[in-house]
Amino acid sequence: MSIFVIDDLLSDENKSLLEGSIPNEIFHYYPTKIFNYPPHPDFLSSDICFGNIPPQWIPANNNLKWIQLISVGFGEYLGLDWMQLSGRLIITNLSGFFARAVSQSILAGILSLYRKIDELVILKKSRIWKGDPLRESMKTLDNKIVILFGNGSINRSLSEILSLFNCKIKVFDSKGKLNNLDKAIPKADIIVSVVPDTPGTNNIFNKTRLKSMKKGAVFVNFGRGSVVDEEALADSLYDDQIGGAVIDVTNQEPLSNNHRFWNCPNLILTQHTGGGTIDEIERKNKHFIENYSLFKEGKKLNGLVDFKKGY
Amino acid sequence: MSIFVIDDLLSDENKSLLEGSIPNEIFHYYPTKIFNYPPHPDFLSSDICFGNIPPQWIPANNNLKWIQLISVGFGEYLGLDWMQLSGRLIITNLSGFFARAVSQSILAGILSLYRKIDELVILKKSRIWKGDPLRESMKTLDNKIVILFGNGSINRSLSEILSLFNCKIKVFDSKGKLNNLDKAIPKADIIVSVVPDTPGTNNIFNKTRLKSMKKGAVFVNFGRGSVVDEEALADSLYDDQIGGAVIDVTNQEPLSNNHRFWNCPNLILTQHTGGGTIDEIERKNKHFIENYSLFKEGKKLNGLVDFKKGY
Repeated sequence: MSIFVIDDLLSDENKSLLEGSIPNEIFHYYPTKIFNYPPHPDFLSSDICFGNIPPQWIPANNNLKWIQLISVGFGEYLGLDWMQLSGRLIITNLSGFFARAVSQSILAGILSLYRKIDELVILKKSRIWKGDPLRESMKTLDNKIVILFGNGSINRSLSEILSLFNCKIKVFDSKGKLNNLDKAIPKADIIVSVVPDTPGTNNIFNKTRLKSMKKGAVFVNFGRGSVVDEEALADSLYDDQIGGAVIDVTNQEPLSNNHRFWNCPNLILTQHTGGGTIDEIERKNKHFIENYSLFKEGKKLNGLVDFKKGY
Repeated sequence: MSIFVIDDLLSDENKSLLEGSIPNEIFHYYPTKIFNYPPHPDFLSSDICFGNIPPQWIPANNNLKWIQLISVGFGEYLGLDWMQLSGRLIITNLSGFFARAVSQSILAGILSLYRKIDELVILKKSRIWKGDPLRESMKTLDNKIVILFGNGSINRSLSEILSLFNCKIKVFDSKGKLNNLDKAIPKADIIVSVVPDTPGTNNIFNKTRLKSMKKGAVFVNFGRGSVVDEEALADSLYDDQIGGAVIDVTNQEPLSNNHRFWNCPNLILTQHTGGGTIDEIERKNKHFIENYSLFKEGKKLNGLVDFKKGY
């Protein structure tokens, strides 16, 4: 069989590891920049694909049996004819792969607001000692009321962490009814959204819901930018209606130079780095190698996407 | 009896709470600025003192039975003649009072370095989107090897948190032998010092020990500035010998404008705010009220300082 690999971030070492662990297959490496052209002949002859290839390439390859995505999201593939494709092709994503890193970025962001690290970093840059007066506005995580919106691996990991601080945690499913969420929002000290972009989640944190948040509360979004009304969130931060926000995902990435978020007070922008780790590439390769073994043995792969369910 | 209170940070509400909870005593409130003068007559007639009065005032008041400090540290009182004073006077400190806040500031600092919050805050200020390339240098707390230097309430609280991330934790007592510490330092990913300033801890993190740290490791000091060689620490940071530092306490506070720390890369300076919380004053008052009840009942007070042991 032959394996088509998107190699943008792969070092020679990474490739050696792949080929050493999967010795009997032919590897084709190409960068994403070839995506602007028709499907590459080496893609058309491949049985397996490792990387997020353009969706329009897929129907052209009748040999293709499995695509291992290097993301959790797979929205770009939802438009394909899965009634037809699912008979011969499976797609696996990296569901759960980023959970520990993302939950620690979320924790880092909230704690930075609570312990004033963001302000202290700017004070250091300006060589200003503020000291004692900062203490009076500092918070701890102890006993906070937290809404976790989305019940996947990230919020499970976060929930485990927050329990240690005796937080009162309410988990909401993005497919559940919204009136319970609406009742919970005004009581919450922290709201964390990690849900994907679906018609049901679009603009769910709109102006009305953001305005109903408790004064001083913190809003966190590590799911998709489309879930929140960015203008309304900027207003809430400028007007000190809420205490702060930690935002990993925005509607536009990179953020345009004149976006209001750049200048928003008490906003930590993590620039879609939430899942990053020093060993990310290596771990992705190991994940692929493990799934490849399962594939060869005809077993169920990790992170199998169910296109009927949409996740 | 009469109670002498240092009232620098007390609101009228705070005073009402004190007087309402302790209705049968006379309260005298004075700010620290009277410390430059001889002992105030109202101090000389007081039985109890709430606040850190000048040590030289103490022998002048033969009525004084109990001093409730509003700090953990009590170094300034070590020079008094405790052989003579301890027969008639007790001192209580706030041992354990700041543990949860400090441990969360330490966690905030380490996670900010690991998840690049410090860099992201500066990028936001400069309206620069860096994004993906940041991911490659991000770390998580998972499985880190951690030295906790000092075995009091702060490190107990921190140890509980770090265990959740499967960290391998080694606790060292500041009074223990140093050869085990010396063996552990080169293996540690994180070193946290929270020990007080004693002859035994002075300059313990000297140039040699800092140089023996693992490349990329993080040094944290929330105890006393005198414990570390600041010049050597600045060198290690400038030369990228260690990965970062989180420093709450410095030899000089406020830090002088030309101190090298201001410009050190990967250094988070928390400006002695580690123990701060929005309800700090209120909690200190409640602590005093609780100890007052114990005092009246002749029971053992919380945070009793043993001047023979020195802590």
